[in-house]
Amino acid sequence: MKLTLEQAQKAVEAGIKKSKELNLKMNIAVVDAGANLMAFNRMEGAWLGSIDIAIKKAKTSRYFDMDTGEIGKLSQPGKSFFSIEHSNNGLITFPGGVTIEHDGEVIGAIGVSGSSVENDHQVASAAKKAIS
Amino acid sequence: MKLTLEQAQKAVEAGIKKSKELNLKMNIAVVDAGANLMAFNRMEGAWLGSIDIAIKKAKTSRYFDMDTGEIGKLSQPGKSFFSIEHSNNGLITFPGGVTIEHDGEVIGAIGVSGSSVENDHQVASAAKKAIS
Amino acid sequence: MKLTLEQAQKAVEAGIKKSKELNLKMNIAVVDAGANLMAFNRMEGAWLGSIDIAIKKAKTSRYFDMDTGEIGKLSQPGKSFFSIEHSNNGLITFPGGVTIEHDGEVIGAIGVSGSSVENDHQVASAAKKAIS
Amino acid sequence: MKLTLEQAQKAVEAGIKKSKELNLKMNIAVVDAGANLMAFNRMEGAWLGSIDIAIKKAKTSRYFDMDTGEIGKLSQPGKSFFSIEHSNNGLITFPGGVTIEHDGEVIGAIGVSGSSVENDHQVASAAKKAIS
Repeated sequence: MKLTLEQAQKAVEAGIKKSKELNLKMNIAVVDAGANLMAFNRMEGAWLGSIDIAIKKAKTSRYFDMDTGEIGKLSQPGKSFFSIEHSNNGLITFPGGVTIEHDGEVIGAIGVSGSSVENDHQVASAAKKAIS
Repeated sequence: MKLTLEQAQKAVEAGIKKSKELNLKMNIAVVDAGANLMAFNRMEGAWLGSIDIAIKKAKTSRYFDMDTGEIGKLSQPGKSFFSIEHSNNGLITFPGGVTIEHDGEVIGAIGVSGSSVENDHQVASAAKKAIS
Repeated sequence: MKLTLEQAQKAVEAGIKKSKELNLKMNIAVVDAGANLMAFNRMEGAWLGSIDIAIKKAKTSRYFDMDTGEIGKLSQPGKSFFSIEHSNNGLITFPGGVTIEHDGEVIGAIGVSGSSVENDHQVASAAKKAIS
Repeated sequence: MKLTLEQAQKAVEAGIKKSKELNLKMNIAVVDAGANLMAFNRMEGAWLGSIDIAIKKAKTSRYFDMDTGEIGKLSQPGKSFFSIEHSNNGLITFPGGVTIEHDGEVIGAIGVSGSSVENDHQVASAAKKAIS
């Protein structure tokens, strides 16, 4: 199954709803199975630097079919994927990027940026849950 | 007045509605007064190469506070802005990018890509009208 | 249907066979539906500058679901897509890139570079025919 | 002796065979003595982010005529080549890139990405062995 725009935008809006509950201002991006952007929203006043980070988190998550925070554990100094961030025109490997699955296959990913990595991940998870 | 996310997404959705009426598959982007991305949607099956073009059209339009087609007239061989596309990490100067104004001030821009430049401009204009 | 590696490499090898018949040295690239590289071969002595061009031709063709030469007709001075090459980190819009279809859907594309655009297109067409 | 396309593709295919034995999905790249791409294959379902990493591993290995894991030991914080990854449009310095030698001279390199660094290196070594 391919990700639809309706699903992608539904995920974005669930993320915005969760952000408002938590009193946060977020950038939320969704990519499809090809790691190509499908939907993006930036809440008023959200960090401008997080536009690119949200998009890169979504892409990074799809690039390796795992949550970005998992990659970040492996890219620390001395770990096996140290400096992987230099590939693919820049990866973002801290939490806030999560995969979207259907029948055990990754069909896209969500990236959230605008607050602490814990908050980013919480909002991304809420966005994912809305379409799972 | 600053462009709100609600307005930006409303413009995107008006563009999608118009695209469906015309049986087109579009990428639609909205940037704010700072030329920073606020909202983006890609319809299923829309050209992948138009993701970047829609965003660049929106940015180009806000960068110079005019519709992209106007800049394109000036960037032809022998004209005064020839090769301006080399600036700003790449401009797109054919129609499909339009400004958003409020009280005579440009507060953002819309970029549409996915079809002929006539169709792109028509959809961008419909998106703009929805929030004017 | 998704493009398989077997198909992609079969297309590459058909292109190499045709190149040898024509006494040419080519770079041949195949991308999948997401415009991501699947297979690439460079014949000994082929132009080094054509590595990137072959890959960009394949991507460009999938980005807009048409042969690259068709885009090139529209990107000339005064035409509607003038300077579109500035998008997507660089497009190549002269012949040599062709789409791969299955049941009327584009599932990938082939890019060939290393000789005249007529030869590039002829080799790309032979590669496409081998898997059509 | 210069690396031939036949050798390069033979290395790629040996890597794919080994990957299948190990039940892995890999991206495999081969560059020649000029560090320019000669052959590349991505197995269906292999990580999309590993396309660039496989190519960068092959280039990195040839750039410094050593296996990428050796460079990675020297690029850790406090070590002599710390942050060398910022050069050459991005290096990848963890295992999976190996040199190809002939008569004591480096004539190319292989890069593999798609799994753990141990698996990546094992597949790269199998690819190398097939043409040594």
